[in-house]
Amino acid sequence: MTRRSAVPPPVTAVLDASSRWLPERLGEVEEQLREQSRGHGELLSKDLAATLAAGGKRLRPLLVLLSAGAQGGEEAVRAAVAIELVHMATLVHDDVLDAAPLRRGQPTIAAVSGRGRAVAAGDLLFSRAFAFLAEHGDSRSVSLLAEASAALARGELAQRQDAFDLAVSEQRYLDRCRLKTAKLFECACRMGSDTEALGAFGAEIGLAFQLLDDVLDVTGPPERTGKARGTDLLDGTVTLPLIVALADDPSIGSAGLRGLDPAGAEVLCDRIATTGALDQVRSRALAMVATAKAELDAASFDPEQRQLLDLVADGVVQRYS
Amino acid sequence: MTRRSAVPPPVTAVLDASSRWLPERLGEVEEQLREQSRGHGELLSKDLAATLAAGGKRLRPLLVLLSAGAQGGEEAVRAAVAIELVHMATLVHDDVLDAAPLRRGQPTIAAVSGRGRAVAAGDLLFSRAFAFLAEHGDSRSVSLLAEASAALARGELAQRQDAFDLAVSEQRYLDRCRLKTAKLFECACRMGSDTEALGAFGAEIGLAFQLLDDVLDVTGPPERTGKARGTDLLDGTVTLPLIVALADDPSIGSAGLRGLDPAGAEVLCDRIATTGALDQVRSRALAMVATAKAELDAASFDPEQRQLLDLVADGVVQRYS
Repeated sequence: MTRRSAVPPPVTAVLDASSRWLPERLGEVEEQLREQSRGHGELLSKDLAATLAAGGKRLRPLLVLLSAGAQGGEEAVRAAVAIELVHMATLVHDDVLDAAPLRRGQPTIAAVSGRGRAVAAGDLLFSRAFAFLAEHGDSRSVSLLAEASAALARGELAQRQDAFDLAVSEQRYLDRCRLKTAKLFECACRMGSDTEALGAFGAEIGLAFQLLDDVLDVTGPPERTGKARGTDLLDGTVTLPLIVALADDPSIGSAGLRGLDPAGAEVLCDRIATTGALDQVRSRALAMVATAKAELDAASFDPEQRQLLDLVADGVVQRYS
Repeated sequence: MTRRSAVPPPVTAVLDASSRWLPERLGEVEEQLREQSRGHGELLSKDLAATLAAGGKRLRPLLVLLSAGAQGGEEAVRAAVAIELVHMATLVHDDVLDAAPLRRGQPTIAAVSGRGRAVAAGDLLFSRAFAFLAEHGDSRSVSLLAEASAALARGELAQRQDAFDLAVSEQRYLDRCRLKTAKLFECACRMGSDTEALGAFGAEIGLAFQLLDDVLDVTGPPERTGKARGTDLLDGTVTLPLIVALADDPSIGSAGLRGLDPAGAEVLCDRIATTGALDQVRSRALAMVATAKAELDAASFDPEQRQLLDLVADGVVQRYS
């Protein structure tokens, strides 16, 4: 249930299939993100540059650019920059809470510079995202992004509230994922082009993304995910694989999650796997990706744009195949 | 150097002098702030309601409303709400870092609900501030507030970077105060009415406010400030009273601030007081308030509006007399 993506989705396939506009625009996003990390004093610039460099594959910016399409201009590039700044802010704040030493193999700001600087650095990234959009008068983007950020914080709060509660329902879990993950994917698409179809597409692949991330927490392997198996369980986070497994075999939950140690978490992961819950959750995620693509049928797209959107949706799945 | 105001400024004097529009509008701000704390789930609503209730005297909202004047409408009320949400977000995050059990006599979110929920609650308050303004198309306010929030985070970072450094210059200290405190006061005034004169007025009284807060950290008494004398010193925060005292008597710094305990901090406070540094800093702050008022001479105001702005400026000083 962490939002971190240790194994980046295969954006490569999307870039390979695209004509020149997409890599060019992603390059602009990268340049403007670097720009945002400068001019805040030397120490902070170092913190932020490291966070940017450790920065995954820019899935949310990619969704903004693809939704805007080849005709999307500077406003789409700015929206892509802003949404990545907000995403980074949430990662920096997550690391404060988890006291995580590493993210994607790089030391976290919290570990290198202390919690105080990490909280403030996250606040700065948040503020810069909105300031950057507002400077350019992108009020539609401000509105969408602020609403998504609020949803994200509410999702984070819901997750903490549900911690260690094995009675959390599937519905409650899905609502949480919508707030915590899907809303920002939906926002990315709508910032690119504010249509019902793209919004629904983004929300569905965001949800699929989170479900598969939660499967990966159970399956590992750690050398691929960058974290120990059962990290969510150790945090008390009850995710869909566990919920489904508990329905199949309630005895799995008899000891609860409090007091679980890493070895115990491994055992619990194995027991979840034995129930067949992982295949069920994977199938649910695949169905969501199919739904996401079907949402696009209702609207008309330039053929290349549609192909690339389908490829991103597939990428979310391939990541875990 | 903390931003907290244990003793609220005498807003009462301003309200007494005002005709009906000001208390009415402050009432609307209060109502809308309560509105913002609802609808985020029961637990969070409790956290936020407690933070709101503990909420000081709404100095920043007051500055927005006074700067907009009696003619200011709903946009001024919304700006006042948004700036208070950002202010509250920074207080909630400060409490996470300081692990503070109490703020204004109320238990902090961090203490009651844990650091995780407090970081997320702060993020939610930030996001709601921008979402609220954006929903109503107040793009000018978004722009001003985002810029001020970024400055605030940079100020916080600068303070952490300077911690325990007795060589911090007066200039560096003032720059830090501009970012960390004065910028949000300036923003409040400019959101009300975006003129040079009001911006300069806000910045000056913000700076005076911080200087006097730093004096209060040395003088106490704790039953008035709600915190032990020398709390800043214990955090390693070098403020103007110490900088001025060190210039007068360098031996004060011979032991450094690291390893200081509460008893040692009391002794250090007494030594600072002995140098006469506190009177010097108070005089500087008074001069800033005079400058602030003089800034207003360059513009023309409705007589009541001008009188009330002067009263707020005086209130910043009276707080410490």
